[in-house]
Amino acid sequence: MLSYLTRWVSRGAFQALKGTSIRPQLVKTPHIGNQTLAAAPLPFTGGSPGVRQARALDQERLLQIDWDDGSCSLYPFTWLRDNCQCPHCTLQSAQARSLLFTNLDVHTGMDQVQLMDNKVSITWPDQHSSEFDPDWLKKRCFSSEARQALQEELFLNEREYWDSSLQIPTADFEEVLHDDKAALAWLEALRRIGIVYLRGAPAEQGQVARLSQRIGYLRLTFYGHMWQVQDKPMANNVAYTSGELSLHTDYPALHHPPGVQFLHCVCQADQGGESEVVDGFHMAEQLRREDPEAFNILSSLRVDFTDSGADYCDFSVQSKNHIIE
Amino acid sequence: MLSYLTRWVSRGAFQALKGTSIRPQLVKTPHIGNQTLAAAPLPFTGGSPGVRQARALDQERLLQIDWDDGSCSLYPFTWLRDNCQCPHCTLQSAQARSLLFTNLDVHTGMDQVQLMDNKVSITWPDQHSSEFDPDWLKKRCFSSEARQALQEELFLNEREYWDSSLQIPTADFEEVLHDDKAALAWLEALRRIGIVYLRGAPAEQGQVARLSQRIGYLRLTFYGHMWQVQDKPMANNVAYTSGELSLHTDYPALHHPPGVQFLHCVCQADQGGESEVVDGFHMAEQLRREDPEAFNILSSLRVDFTDSGADYCDFSVQSKNHIIE
Repeated sequence: MLSYLTRWVSRGAFQALKGTSIRPQLVKTPHIGNQTLAAAPLPFTGGSPGVRQARALDQERLLQIDWDDGSCSLYPFTWLRDNCQCPHCTLQSAQARSLLFTNLDVHTGMDQVQLMDNKVSITWPDQHSSEFDPDWLKKRCFSSEARQALQEELFLNEREYWDSSLQIPTADFEEVLHDDKAALAWLEALRRIGIVYLRGAPAEQGQVARLSQRIGYLRLTFYGHMWQVQDKPMANNVAYTSGELSLHTDYPALHHPPGVQFLHCVCQADQGGESEVVDGFHMAEQLRREDPEAFNILSSLRVDFTDSGADYCDFSVQSKNHIIE
Repeated sequence: MLSYLTRWVSRGAFQALKGTSIRPQLVKTPHIGNQTLAAAPLPFTGGSPGVRQARALDQERLLQIDWDDGSCSLYPFTWLRDNCQCPHCTLQSAQARSLLFTNLDVHTGMDQVQLMDNKVSITWPDQHSSEFDPDWLKKRCFSSEARQALQEELFLNEREYWDSSLQIPTADFEEVLHDDKAALAWLEALRRIGIVYLRGAPAEQGQVARLSQRIGYLRLTFYGHMWQVQDKPMANNVAYTSGELSLHTDYPALHHPPGVQFLHCVCQADQGGESEVVDGFHMAEQLRREDPEAFNILSSLRVDFTDSGADYCDFSVQSKNHIIE
């Protein structure tokens, strides 16, 4: 079983999902979010230094925090007022702003700032007061290092581009289903490389649904939630023939093409049936180097994609997309 | 009942979907595609002039068609070979290319071109032959006029930006459900203006599902397919409180925010409960004129959006998006 992040480099070319007579199921899941893996809290940073001094730079409208370790951070008044964590300004249960924009004075000054109980306490000109935890502030310091660290914490940014020398990472299907660590390792490899080969799934339909339910939910398309890639009479898609397919990217006519697709080879063809995959990001990078003009055309010119027919429902979809996004 | 194309100008601001105590249902539908409306064939253009002469310009690798009306069209050899409509190169039932890229010679010449039975018949150097219908060719002429006409045929390109002087277009809910012309008029207004007010829906839950099934299918989100916007304890979203909301755009943390949302006011609040809507495109255009630097920042700088909690499923979503897209 293959799972991969479809890399939207080419919408019309590049990725081959099937050869001849292969009969995988395809399923799409729009994002990674589930019962046990995705909702984990952010890692605890802890160990932030204490605040030595906090003072308002009224001219610059910045709050300056001098930390015990000798470093210094600057926070705009407006940003602090906008990010007030009090129950009036932030709905704690949703972790969302409830302060109305109309009540935010973007030109606000600061009446007073003091350290109280190891918190930075601010009184605003309208006598509203805000309290900030030093850890919270330190983590949101505007230095490029702190911002980089926060991005690393929020996103899995590591990427590997690959060519034919790739050893496709593998994982055990049942382990991924039942062991959180195996599932996380699978997802991280999928994110980093874009393709993972899962072995050991039962050779029967329904396995991709089990896998997708493990990490999220399926996205409905006009071909349904999942479908059988097999030779069909009056095929409404070239994938439903036994003919060879060129490298391609799936669903270019969709406004939002799939992010992850699962293919399960339930019945291997006696002859043929090879699947070919290509790293579109790698090819795009290569093209950018070798033929910048071609890259520029393919990434700036929107072309028409169309898909029409009847499947899960009647459909007639028309879109304009870049070949390389 | 309001339905509108959410205009993704501001992901954090601009559009208000509810005021206080309003209890609409929200439903999202990702695209327009249904049993009766969307799969209509393209309008018949007809009446194309006949071909007076077809000749290969070997130097330029262009086919020149002189039409009976005195006009002239040029088609690149490679484009013609790529678009061969024969059963080997095009899967008719899918209206899709089955010609493999590896079998396409992008530097192809042309052995012969002739008019046969009012078709343009081409023989390629490998003796493969292609036949093109004059209507088909005329419609795909590369002149800017023909390309413009084709775009007008493929897309509903008309847009109206609006301010507070807008008279929100209205339609009758039951008519839209049962009359194709009314449904088409509703969708065209929705596309053009971005908001339509449907009257006459029964004041009970389930109406948005009926409406969405009329034109497509709902998109699943981690808040479910649809949800009740009402005051909830420990609200996981500011929309689930009775507090006033600032103008905003929904679901900025999603990779693919909704295109169309339906809100149904099932129970009007005794006091308050107003909904406010703003045309984000209009505001963005205004900002572009009045403060190009601000527009540039908001449309080029990606900011972090986050949404976490538990609803249809546990979720913890993080995204980077432009405020103005």
